[in-house]
Amino acid sequence: MIRQVSESATWQAFSEWSGTLADIESASSVLGWDRETHMPVGGAETRARALGTLAALSHRELTRPEIADALEELRAADLDPARAAAVRLAQRRRTRALAVPERLVRESSEASSRCVSVWADARPTGDFTRLAPELQRVIALKREEAEALREPDMGEAYDALLEGFEPGARTAWLEPLFAKVRAGVEPLVGPAADAQPPELPPDLDWPKGAQLELTAVLAREVGFDDTRGLVSESAHPFTASPGAGDVRFTTRIDPTSPLPGALASMHELGHALYEQGLPLEPAGTPAREAPSLGAHESQSRLWENYVGRSDEFWTALDPTLRELFPSQMRGLAGADLARASRRSQPSLIRVEADEVTYDLHIVLRFELELALIRGDLEVADLPGAWDERMESLLGVRPPGPADGAMQDIHWHAGLVGYFPTYTLGNLYAAQLSDTIAADLAPVAELTEAGQLPELLEFLRDRVHRHGSRYETAELMRRATGRELSEEPLVRHLRETYLVA
Amino acid sequence: MIRQVSESATWQAFSEWSGTLADIESASSVLGWDRETHMPVGGAETRARALGTLAALSHRELTRPEIADALEELRAADLDPARAAAVRLAQRRRTRALAVPERLVRESSEASSRCVSVWADARPTGDFTRLAPELQRVIALKREEAEALREPDMGEAYDALLEGFEPGARTAWLEPLFAKVRAGVEPLVGPAADAQPPELPPDLDWPKGAQLELTAVLAREVGFDDTRGLVSESAHPFTASPGAGDVRFTTRIDPTSPLPGALASMHELGHALYEQGLPLEPAGTPAREAPSLGAHESQSRLWENYVGRSDEFWTALDPTLRELFPSQMRGLAGADLARASRRSQPSLIRVEADEVTYDLHIVLRFELELALIRGDLEVADLPGAWDERMESLLGVRPPGPADGAMQDIHWHAGLVGYFPTYTLGNLYAAQLSDTIAADLAPVAELTEAGQLPELLEFLRDRVHRHGSRYETAELMRRATGRELSEEPLVRHLRETYLVA
Repeated sequence: MIRQVSESATWQAFSEWSGTLADIESASSVLGWDRETHMPVGGAETRARALGTLAALSHRELTRPEIADALEELRAADLDPARAAAVRLAQRRRTRALAVPERLVRESSEASSRCVSVWADARPTGDFTRLAPELQRVIALKREEAEALREPDMGEAYDALLEGFEPGARTAWLEPLFAKVRAGVEPLVGPAADAQPPELPPDLDWPKGAQLELTAVLAREVGFDDTRGLVSESAHPFTASPGAGDVRFTTRIDPTSPLPGALASMHELGHALYEQGLPLEPAGTPAREAPSLGAHESQSRLWENYVGRSDEFWTALDPTLRELFPSQMRGLAGADLARASRRSQPSLIRVEADEVTYDLHIVLRFELELALIRGDLEVADLPGAWDERMESLLGVRPPGPADGAMQDIHWHAGLVGYFPTYTLGNLYAAQLSDTIAADLAPVAELTEAGQLPELLEFLRDRVHRHGSRYETAELMRRATGRELSEEPLVRHLRETYLVA
Repeated sequence: MIRQVSESATWQAFSEWSGTLADIESASSVLGWDRETHMPVGGAETRARALGTLAALSHRELTRPEIADALEELRAADLDPARAAAVRLAQRRRTRALAVPERLVRESSEASSRCVSVWADARPTGDFTRLAPELQRVIALKREEAEALREPDMGEAYDALLEGFEPGARTAWLEPLFAKVRAGVEPLVGPAADAQPPELPPDLDWPKGAQLELTAVLAREVGFDDTRGLVSESAHPFTASPGAGDVRFTTRIDPTSPLPGALASMHELGHALYEQGLPLEPAGTPAREAPSLGAHESQSRLWENYVGRSDEFWTALDPTLRELFPSQMRGLAGADLARASRRSQPSLIRVEADEVTYDLHIVLRFELELALIRGDLEVADLPGAWDERMESLLGVRPPGPADGAMQDIHWHAGLVGYFPTYTLGNLYAAQLSDTIAADLAPVAELTEAGQLPELLEFLRDRVHRHGSRYETAELMRRATGRELSEEPLVRHLRETYLVA
């Protein structure tokens, strides 16, 4: 029966249809990567139009009426689990695409484009008055979209937005979880800042060529396959995956320190290893991807924070560092870099925040965007609410909206329900680290023993190879044997940051 | 009336339709560029599929029935010349797309893919027996395609293939023209080889970094706008133009000599300057492109051969060369590089051929592909015919098909009717050079006087800014005031190569 349906004309039709969608996505991925790495400034306008056209073609293909019968038939069929997952995911994507009327899609896209452009202009001077009407429009449309996307099992409209980034997650689960994260992390902030290790000498110059070479070494060390990927440089590091054999990540170079680049590389390598480890079958179907952004972030955070900020990691790199940076490393040991990577201090800007304070930045954004969608907070009151919450969570107050409510692009680009995935990633990473310690050995010990291949193998087996067969909560339940809790993360931070 | 139609809903519909086509082409262009410059080997399969899907989506859009009425209405309307040209070109492309049955499109694409793959495998050993059935299939399908595409004014089927690369060109015009090229060039081959200038010292190493820097200098010198373009490196140099503000060319590096790289750069810069000089209006319509490959090649050859192989050019570069290659240039002057760029000798491989013998390689290919399409030559007899013709034209005989009929990818990829555009480009370049000498000053004098910006301005005015408004023959008639003839090219070769 399975065999029969799999090779049927129906499966063939589904496979071609989802293959076309995957191909368009692959093309968009290359165009996006090129935009951030090589495109000349003059190419911006054409690129925006080309990406818009690819999105429209993808939407047209996704909502094609002709595929409805095939999907219906396959959902009723007795498929093997991987194929069943592929059909379920495609169906869900299609249902969501069909749920939003075309008028709303167009209006949202236009409102976000305009808002991002005003935001980019108004941010440097913190001119929130100019930005407010644009953001208000975006939020109003997001609320409309959330109502359109809301499914019977969703407790509130915000769930429908969350579903776009973290399928299966619900506000009723997140709110108490994030409250516990806040309660667990808040008491660590002061002591972590007091126990702060010394920074690197600030007057050294760390050449770009050697930093890129260091990233190449890191990539080899962690098991990145460079016949199926590449590394480049961009202002904001990211990973793109145009195909199973073509996984790209970028790093950034800070000439005053090798740490931001090395940690960005480790973070993106976490994403890239996940992409390289996804199952190859069924090809050209949506099962060949991570089940959520939170699942993806669990991998990037594990490699960045549990491997990449450890004494063991940097000590093992000591000879490489001496070779690449002979004069800069005079008087320094690898362990000094490790310690400097673990400085913690309350600060205003999320993307510069350390491991301890980071999740409080996310808690703040989650609370505020939830209030915006619920209608409990007006856009006009956002900067005030932000500053107040910032002061209560981290004890610092932005001098103006540029360093407060206007710092991130997300909301202006229409990305609401996205922020929580960062903290979910941190929580899953901590829980995975516990499991690795129990089933294999503590990550630091694996690092010290040169057993990163074993660590990767473990992650491949427990996480990567399953693609999107399970929703994230179920995937992690199977991987760790436990429900998600704040405890492993809070314990990790306490043990790591409350010693000098 | 013009105003009325231009802003009408009909023009709007046309503009959106052709904009979508242009966007898909832009995406394909980036994917192609990336494939040759950065893509890891593992990306090949997905990339081939993504490009195939984009081609299919483009074909689907091009042949959409809904656009037929709009095109009909616009063809009858009184549009300004640029818009009229845009509509005419789009209509022609659509008519050709509709003329070939889908079955034939698919069969041709599959046959070419298979043939190229067998060719790549069989070429190193010159195993033509293995290749022949595949090539035979490609040629048979090409003949079928030519019949489907043949229009009333076409004297023979080959014209319909030619039309795909050199719109307006006809065999009845090319055959006598190429016979005169052959008659004019053949007598120069022996004397040019006898008058051969010395080559560069063969034992020097020319570092890659400095060669890339030289290309950057050349780009600046000739007026390439790097805010609207970029340069990279690839095995086979080419130019890609994802958009008006995004024109990319590649160069290649030969560590034993700076000449192949510099000349490849000048060649591609000729293409790139043309792309940067195309008219911006009407945006997103097919008028924003060169009218033919021959027109395009006229620009690349002009910059490569008339500027880039002149004593004046390399003498002006002398200080730059000394700076970039201090030890290599010891005992050499810029003019020595110029002379070495003008060595001529009969050889077997087209892509390595010099300026004198190059067009005889093309004449041979034109004669043979014409005979194949006419049915006067069987694929099985191709290698024999090739070797014989090679001996009669250039006095050299390939040791086997690897250096003979199997050397180029074109026919195997289904590119029949393409080769003549190379020689048309050389002929147009020579004729333009005459016009520049008459109306401005000889190209060498402009080069010596640092007046390359004036040369570019002239080409912009006479060629680039017209886009595809005229067919190539008409464009060049307007640019040079003359009909195309072999005489300027033959005279140029005689004057340049028959002095030591």
